[in-house]
Amino acid sequence: MKGNIFDNCKTDSKEEIFETLYQNENVIIERIISFGNVTPQGQWYDQEKDEWVLLIEGDAKLEFEDNNIVELIKGDYIHLPAHQKHRVIYTSIEPKCIWLAFYFKS
Amino acid sequence: MKGNIFDNCKTDSKEEIFETLYQNENVIIERIISFGNVTPQGQWYDQEKDEWVLLIEGDAKLEFEDNNIVELIKGDYIHLPAHQKHRVIYTSIEPKCIWLAFYFKS
Repeated sequence: MKGNIFDNCKTDSKEEIFETLYQNENVIIERIISFGNVTPQGQWYDQEKDEWVLLIEGDAKLEFEDNNIVELIKGDYIHLPAHQKHRVIYTSIEPKCIWLAFYFKS
Repeated sequence: MKGNIFDNCKTDSKEEIFETLYQNENVIIERIISFGNVTPQGQWYDQEKDEWVLLIEGDAKLEFEDNNIVELIKGDYIHLPAHQKHRVIYTSIEPKCIWLAFYFKS
């Protein structure tokens, strides 16, 4: 029922860590931990749901289809409407990035 | 489009500050800043929507109808199903409490 967003952030993996914190038929709440991970070249996120994401720790950069780049620092949040194509082009390693992502219907 | 959860947290008011960060017909995303504020004696939150709330900064205590008390520290999150009556019985002043609350359909 209760959890802590900073728990179990350490890992030996080099892969991003995706963890569902809550889910029902309408929404998904997810914690993502990144440390240098980026979206592979030529790939884009193109999501069915809207996403509202908060960067709780770390620094990151998102790229959009119109070549716009948005820099995110600790505490920044952004709304990504469904099917707004975007890529993660930078995530800091120290500190690692802790993202809280909220996915929901438009 | 982009904002920061730590922006404009200072206030001279003694009232809690509720700020809608995003809203559509399905969800509400809200920042709440508390500093010693509690739910008035004898009152309960009895909400139509589910709430998933993260305490980004500060310490707090929630009370439930069965007298259970849940202590929250920085980074703690909790899911409060719709109509699960609860009260806020403590919020720290220094540091103040920064809450991120997601409200959504069950």
